[in-house]
Amino acid sequence: MRVGESLRLMRERRPLVHQITNYVVMNETANATLALGALPVMAHAPEEMEEMVAVADALVLNIGTLSTHWVEAMLAAGWAANARGVPVVLDPVGAGATTYRTDTARRILDEVDVTVLRGNAGEIATLVGVAAEVRGVESAEVGADPAGLAREAARSLGVVASVTGPVDHVSDGERVAAIANGDPMLATITGTGCMSTAITGCFLAVAGSPFDAAVEALVAFGVAGEDAAKGARGPGSFHVNLYDALAALDPATLDSRARLS
Amino acid sequence: MRVGESLRLMRERRPLVHQITNYVVMNETANATLALGALPVMAHAPEEMEEMVAVADALVLNIGTLSTHWVEAMLAAGWAANARGVPVVLDPVGAGATTYRTDTARRILDEVDVTVLRGNAGEIATLVGVAAEVRGVESAEVGADPAGLAREAARSLGVVASVTGPVDHVSDGERVAAIANGDPMLATITGTGCMSTAITGCFLAVAGSPFDAAVEALVAFGVAGEDAAKGARGPGSFHVNLYDALAALDPATLDSRARLS
Amino acid sequence: MRVGESLRLMRERRPLVHQITNYVVMNETANATLALGALPVMAHAPEEMEEMVAVADALVLNIGTLSTHWVEAMLAAGWAANARGVPVVLDPVGAGATTYRTDTARRILDEVDVTVLRGNAGEIATLVGVAAEVRGVESAEVGADPAGLAREAARSLGVVASVTGPVDHVSDGERVAAIANGDPMLATITGTGCMSTAITGCFLAVAGSPFDAAVEALVAFGVAGEDAAKGARGPGSFHVNLYDALAALDPATLDSRARLS
Repeated sequence: MRVGESLRLMRERRPLVHQITNYVVMNETANATLALGALPVMAHAPEEMEEMVAVADALVLNIGTLSTHWVEAMLAAGWAANARGVPVVLDPVGAGATTYRTDTARRILDEVDVTVLRGNAGEIATLVGVAAEVRGVESAEVGADPAGLAREAARSLGVVASVTGPVDHVSDGERVAAIANGDPMLATITGTGCMSTAITGCFLAVAGSPFDAAVEALVAFGVAGEDAAKGARGPGSFHVNLYDALAALDPATLDSRARLS
Repeated sequence: MRVGESLRLMRERRPLVHQITNYVVMNETANATLALGALPVMAHAPEEMEEMVAVADALVLNIGTLSTHWVEAMLAAGWAANARGVPVVLDPVGAGATTYRTDTARRILDEVDVTVLRGNAGEIATLVGVAAEVRGVESAEVGADPAGLAREAARSLGVVASVTGPVDHVSDGERVAAIANGDPMLATITGTGCMSTAITGCFLAVAGSPFDAAVEALVAFGVAGEDAAKGARGPGSFHVNLYDALAALDPATLDSRARLS
Repeated sequence: MRVGESLRLMRERRPLVHQITNYVVMNETANATLALGALPVMAHAPEEMEEMVAVADALVLNIGTLSTHWVEAMLAAGWAANARGVPVVLDPVGAGATTYRTDTARRILDEVDVTVLRGNAGEIATLVGVAAEVRGVESAEVGADPAGLAREAARSLGVVASVTGPVDHVSDGERVAAIANGDPMLATITGTGCMSTAITGCFLAVAGSPFDAAVEALVAFGVAGEDAAKGARGPGSFHVNLYDALAALDPATLDSRARLS
C-alpha cells in the first residue's frame, strides 16, 4: 500500500483510462478522473474499440444504463484489453435488481478476465449467489459479513473484489483489507459508486498490484469524500467540493490518512 | 394538499422512481430525486423493462432526446406500469417543435394511461390542438389563459395536467390549482422542467391523489428554487444551490410556504 | 471584431443552436449556451432532423462519443443546414486518436459544407495530414506552429479553422488571429473544448462573419474562464464559476478585455 506514491506517479504519467460507462455519470466519472490526475476517454463504437483499448492504461466497464449494443462494446473492449494485458475493472451496477443486469454482469465475468470487480454488497452478493435485496441501483440490503463476502467473491469469481459500503472491503481471496475512509454524504449524490470504479481504473494503471490498486483507490476517494464534506451545505455543494478535494489530494499526507485494517 | 406530510413520507419510505429520460438531464434528475428523498433508477433496455417497473413506485417518461428504441422502451415501460397500477408521469419535451415529438407524445398518451402530463404551455397547447409557437425545447409562447389550458388538457387527454410557467397550473379537469412558487433563475439552467417532472414522479408515490401529487411537487420544487436563488451569483451557483435546497426542504414549514390559489 | 455587440445581439435575439454532441458534455454545453444568452436544443433522431435544423440559427456537430446512427444524424443535419444556409461548426473530438474518428471527421468535412472547424492542435493537424500524437481526447502534442496550422487547415479544408490551446488561433486562410484569453484551469475539467465549440455556434448566429464568430467566441469564453478562475478552489468550483461568469459577461467591457493579435 503506497497510495501517495501511486497518486504521485499518476499525476506524472497521466495514464489514459478508457471508460464504457452509463449515461447518468459519464461527465462525473470523466471529471473525477481528470481531477485525480489521469486522462479519461469515453468511447463505445465497435469500430474503434481495439484501437482505443490499445492506447489505454486501464479499462472501466460499467453497466449502469446497459443495452445490447453497449454490452457488445464492453465485451469487445474487454477482449481487446485482455489480449494486450490492459487491466479491467467492472462495475455491475444493479446486478440483482433485474435478471438482465445479473446475466450481463455474469456474462462479462465469464467472457472477460476482469481484474477488479467493484460493487456494493447487494450486487456482489448476487454475483456469488448469495440472496440479496436490491432495489434499483441506489440501495441494497445484505447480510452481516462484508469481509467474508469480499473474500468469497474474489475466490469464486477469480477477481480482486472491492465491496463498498459504510466500510469498504477489498479481497484477493487471501487477504482482506477494510477501508473506513469516506463520509455518509457520498451516498447523497448519484454516481459516487461509479466514480470509485473509475478511480480504481486510474490506480490500476500505476499501483503495484490489482489488490493494492483497489485499496488505494478507495482510500484516496474516501479521503476526498471526507474533505468534501467539510463546509458542504448539502448534496449540491458536496458534489462540487468532491472534485476540488480529489484535485487537492496530497501525495505526501495521503498514506497517513488511510483508515485501514 | 399536504406537501410537508408527503415529503416526510417520501423520506421515510424512499420510493423507487424509474426514469426513462433524456441524455441531457439524466444526472440532474437523478440527483434531484435523491436530494428530495426518493431513489432514482435509470433503465431503458427492453430486456429489463417489466422487471424494473415491477419494483418501481412511479414511472417517469421524458422524450427530450427521443429516438425509435427509446420510444419503444417508454411504451413498454408504460404498459408494464399500467398493468401493475404504477403511476406514470409524461414530459412531452419539445412537442410542437417537431412533428416527431408531437406525434410521439400523442402516441404515448394514446397507448399508455398517463397519470400526470407535465409540460410548458406550448407543449401542452400543442397536445390539445391549440396553436402555439414552440422554438426548440427552452422557449414557448402561448395565449393568455394557462388555467383554461390546464383544465382543457386534463379533460380532453384524460390526465392530470401540470402546466408550468411563471405561475404553474394543475388541473384534473374540474379543479385548477395555481402555484406561484419558484424563481426566474429556474429558467437559466437546462433541465429544471425535467426535474419538476421527476419530482412529480416522486410525489406520485406518496401523495393522496395524482392531483395532489402534481400540486405538491410544484410547491416543493418552487420553494427549493426560491431558496436556491438566495446567494446565487449566476446559473452555475444557482444549480448547485438547488440540490442543497431540495435536500434542506423542511416538512414542518413547507405547507406554510405554498403560494397556492 | 465586435464581441460585445455580438453578445448584446445574442441576448436580444436568443438564437436557437441545434447541437448533436456527445453524451459526456450534453448538459454542460446546453448550460453554457443558456448562460451565454442563446437557446440550446439537443436532437438527433433522423425523423426530426430537417424540421429541427429548419428553425435553428446554427448547427453544432461533435463526434465525442460517436457511433453509426449518430454519425448518420450529423450528416443528415449537416445537409439540411447547408440547404438552408444555417452555419455549421464541427468539433472533431479525438480525430487522430482512432481511425474511426479521423475517418468520420473527414467524411463530415467532405460531405457537409462546414463553416468553422474547432479543435485542438492534434485533431486539426490530423485532419490536414500533419503527424500528431493524440492520446484519447484530452491530450495532444503537435509541432511548433499553431498559426501556420490554422492557416493551412483553413486553406486545405475550406473552413474557418479554430485551433485552441494555451493560445488559440483562428484563420480563414488569409488572416490569422491569435487569442490569448483563457486560464489553465479550463484544462482541468472535461468538456471545455466542446463548450467552446457550442459557443462558436452561438456566435455564428449573430457575428458579422464566420471568422469573426470564431474569434469572438474564443474571446468571450476565454474571458469567462479568466473570471471563473478567480476564487476557484479547484476544478469543481471552477466549473460552477464558469457558468456564472458566462452569464455575467458584460457586452460593454468585453472588447476591452480581448487579448488579440
